[in-house]
Parts: sequence; C-alpha cells; structure tokens
Amino acid sequence: MDIESKVLNGDKRATGKLISMVENRDSEGFRILQNLYGHTGKAYVIGITGPPGAGKSTLTDKLTKLLRKEDKKVAIVAVDPTSPFTGGAILGDRVRMNELSTDKGVFIRSMGARGHLGGISEATAAAIKILDIYGADFILVETVGVGQSEIDIVKNCDTTLMVMVPGLGDDIQAIKAGVMEIGDVFAVNKADRDGAQRTAREIEMMLDFNKNMAWRPPVNMVVASENQGVDILLESLLKHKHYLESTGKLESKRIANAKSEIVEMIKERIIHSLLDNAHNEDLLEVYSRKIVSREENPYSAVENLFDAYKAMLRLK
Amino acid sequence: MDIESKVLNGDKRATGKLISMVENRDSEGFRILQNLYGHTGKAYVIGITGPPGAGKSTLTDKLTKLLRKEDKKVAIVAVDPTSPFTGGAILGDRVRMNELSTDKGVFIRSMGARGHLGGISEATAAAIKILDIYGADFILVETVGVGQSEIDIVKNCDTTLMVMVPGLGDDIQAIKAGVMEIGDVFAVNKADRDGAQRTAREIEMMLDFNKNMAWRPPVNMVVASENQGVDILLESLLKHKHYLESTGKLESKRIANAKSEIVEMIKERIIHSLLDNAHNEDLLEVYSRKIVSREENPYSAVENLFDAYKAMLRLK
Repeated sequence: MDIESKVLNGDKRATGKLISMVENRDSEGFRILQNLYGHTGKAYVIGITGPPGAGKSTLTDKLTKLLRKEDKKVAIVAVDPTSPFTGGAILGDRVRMNELSTDKGVFIRSMGARGHLGGISEATAAAIKILDIYGADFILVETVGVGQSEIDIVKNCDTTLMVMVPGLGDDIQAIKAGVMEIGDVFAVNKADRDGAQRTAREIEMMLDFNKNMAWRPPVNMVVASENQGVDILLESLLKHKHYLESTGKLESKRIANAKSEIVEMIKERIIHSLLDNAHNEDLLEVYSRKIVSREENPYSAVENLFDAYKAMLRLK
Repeated sequence: MDIESKVLNGDKRATGKLISMVENRDSEGFRILQNLYGHTGKAYVIGITGPPGAGKSTLTDKLTKLLRKEDKKVAIVAVDPTSPFTGGAILGDRVRMNELSTDKGVFIRSMGARGHLGGISEATAAAIKILDIYGADFILVETVGVGQSEIDIVKNCDTTLMVMVPGLGDDIQAIKAGVMEIGDVFAVNKADRDGAQRTAREIEMMLDFNKNMAWRPPVNMVVASENQGVDILLESLLKHKHYLESTGKLESKRIANAKSEIVEMIKERIIHSLLDNAHNEDLLEVYSRKIVSREENPYSAVENLFDAYKAMLRLK
C-alpha cells in the first residue's frame, strides 16, 4: 500500500512519516497532502496555549483521557516555536505520557522551529491537515508561550483554550491584553494555589470589559495534576464547539483561518524568493555594512533593496 | 527649535513624539530619523527577556538605578509583542517606577504591537535609534515572553540578558532550548526561592553542552526585589560589552543586526504591497472560501496567488 492509502487508513507510522516530509519541506510530501486535501475538514481542532509553567501538557493529557473514554480518536501536536529541535525539548515532557502513547487511539507528535522562522505555523497547519486525513476526531495543538508565533499557531484552530496559572505577577496584565482575542475558553490551572481566585477574577474583569462578545469565554478552575475540574473544562470546550457549529461561525472562522494560512505561506514564498538568491544576499551584506558605518541608513537601504527585488521578479 | 534639533539636544518630549510618529508609521517621522541617522551608534543596547513572571521589570529598575549612580543616561523600552496597546498593559507595570520617571536622566517608553504583526520589532528598532540620537548611554529593551517576536526584538540589541526563575517546571526545557543562542548573560531571579540552584544548574548544563563558545555566558543568581546580586549581574553585562568591543565582535554583531532589521523591513514592505490592494484582498477571500469548501487546496491557492502578485509587480 502506498503512503496515501496508509494515511487514509489511519496508519500511524505513515502519518508520522508524511508529517516529517512536510516538516522537511519535501515537495513529494506536499504533493501527497494536496491529493488528500479533500479528506480534511472532519477533525475538530483545539489549540491549548498559555505561559510557560502553566501545566499545559498535564492538562492536555487529562483532556485526552476524557476524550478517549468517549472513544474519540485523539491526536496531540506539541509545538514549541522557540525550539530548533523536533521532538527534542518537548519530547522530554511527553515521556510522561507513556500511558497515552501505547493507546492505539492516540497519536502524539512534537514539532519545533528547526531554524525555519515563520515556518513553524505552516508546518503545524500541514500536520493538522494530515492528522485530519488520518482520522483524528480531535486534534489538540499545544504551544509553549504567549508570543506572536503562538498566536499564529492557534490561528489554525477552531477553539482556543488559554491556560493561566496563579503567580505570574504583573506580567499577567501583559498576557491578558495579548490573549483576550484568542482565548475562547480560559482555564486557571493549579487552582489549589494561593492567588488562583484572584487570577480568575482578573481574567473575568478583562472579559467583562468587552461587552460586545457574542460568546462570553468561560473561566474554569482546574487542578490538572489531580484531575480536578477537567471534565467541566471539557464541557466548556464542547459548548464552544457547539456554539460555532450552530451559529455557522465555524465556517467563517475556518475561512478566516484559511486566509491567514495562505497569507503566511505567500509571505514565506516571497521571502524565500528574495533570500535564495546570491545576488540579493550580497546586496544585503553590502548594505548592512554601510548601515553600521553610517554611509547608508536602514530606510533608504530598504527602498533600494525593494526596488532590486521587484526588478528581479519582473525578469523572472 | 524644530523636532530634529530638540531630539539631538536630549529633549524628552520631542523624543517621545518622534517615537510615536515612527510607531504610527508616519512618513515624516521616518524622514526625520533618516536625517538624524548619522548620530546613532553611541548608545549600548541591552535586551532583557525571559518568561512571564520572571521579574524582568523589577530587575530593569534596579539595573537602571545602578547605571544612574555612574551618571549614565538610561532609556528603558518595555516591549510587549502580544499587546495591541501602546503604553497600556505594560504601563501598569511601569507605574511602580515612579521614582525613576522623575529622574531627568531616565527615559521610559512602553510599546505594544498595535495590530501590526511583525511591525513591533521594526518600531522597536526605530525607537532604539531615536533614543540613541537623544543621547542615552544605555538603552534597556525589556520584552515579555520567549517567543519568536521576542527573539526578533533582541536582534536589535548588543547584549541580551535572559532572566529565568525557579518553578517553570518542564517548560524550562523548551525555554532553554529556544534561548541558548540569544542569551549572552543569564540571571536566575527570585534566587531565594526553592529550586533556584537547580534552575541555575540546568542552565549551566545546557551551556556546557556547547563547548565551542568563545564567550561562555555567566549565570548570575539575583533577588531583584531585594537588590541582591544586581551589582554583580551588571558587572557581567559590562564584561560582555567589553568582550564584544575588544574583539571587534560588536561591529560584526551590529552588521548582523542591521541585516536582520532590513530583511524584516523588506518583508513588511512586500507584505504591504501584497495586501494593500483591493484586487488581492478579493482574491484572498475567494481562495479562502474555496479552501474551506474543498474546491481548492491551500498549496495550489498559494501558487496562484504568488503568480498574481508577481504579475501585479510587473505592471507597476
């Protein structure tokens, strides 16, 4: 059987191989994915994000176990935009998940940036499609951090769970400001710790600030390590899924996601066409040196380089 | 006196205004900055990054106070790539710094993403230049988070201080993997807490892994809130400054920084030329809908859109 049929038949090994292919920007991998693209759209994709130390992995494990009780096929994609390794840093985490990794209904994959700035959200989007074709009912995409790359990654998701934790100090202000738009459901993990109620109240206040929400994100208290509150959290997530489906917003969200995905890919394409060119590389070096010696300034340099780039495209 | 002369004369208000102009992409602001660009290159830029809750703001305050004792002029740029507000979220933090803000030798500025994905590092780079022209001896650029945007931001710095903290759990693995390249000096803050020694040991181990370092980043234990160890940390930062200056590496680092800055700006330029176009916007919408209805796949859509973009440039 070829790899296409194997992935369609839910073969884990072939699925993992196809993900590696697209991660390595193998054109054959993308050709296969294009052929199979018609089989996507069935999985429900939940993004799980939040600051380091919030306990996202533990929570992902517990949610997975609950979904398995309902006999749902689950795929976990653990994305670390800051890690240059695939299956490296985060895999350490995942060792814990031994129990899950022997479960036939669970597929686990770690992904890192591998030096491809910007490429990580593209690779994650491709992995999500492949896991959809593979037959996952739910795909849980876990990311470390709260920066722009994480926001790009959750743009591939249907529902985004924001995991917060007490003890972030003043930084919680910054985090909250950044994630209010992307969190559909909030969890305050380690809710048995001091300050958990205060953290929850702060999130609620920020949410109350925006009166025009058609969907008011719920804030759930959980202690993932003790499996406390995880069932209610899952209910919240499924309620959001139902809300999107019943209002037709799932489709418009997926259209918006598709748009940001192709914009990201076009960016990547353009940047590659710009940088994969010895002449441009030389020009960049010359201008950078002139900028530091103050013979040129960055803004005029950009004008000149942009003109050179346009001229190059016109010649192609 | 015009704004150019005022900034050159160290006028805080004019400096703040010029930063706002470039932040708002005002072309007049960039024209002024181009005129003044020859006056840059004197300030030393220190990036301060680390996970949320690491106490970066407190540490920045204490470092600033030490530099003020040496009568150095200090500018603080607090950047929050996840915040859509300028001077909003992080400003809350900065209220603490009342003491500093009344000091004539200290300039404080908060910056947020304002919906400009990717634009934040460009705006920060411009603010750094303006503060250099204004006459700061040291510019401390503080960022929240450990994602790609933060890495882009510290690319504008000469020396990067990575602030870690005990209690990050397994996520420290991911953070460490992502920041080993960008940290020139490490601080373990809240060093009076349980697990601080272990955190320091883990960082040291990661650093030992890379035997080929010409500069071995020091790991300093600090309790910023108690002002413990901050003097030794400042010494480490100045040692790195001396190392870069005495080996000629400061120049090569600044050339590399200039290169990544102009690459980022060209990216932005290209993206704007792509998206600020009603025809392209329509095409994007049409393709996004077709992707979700499975009439098209994202990869062929990107091919077609890229061709359309090239054709558009040819016509210009």
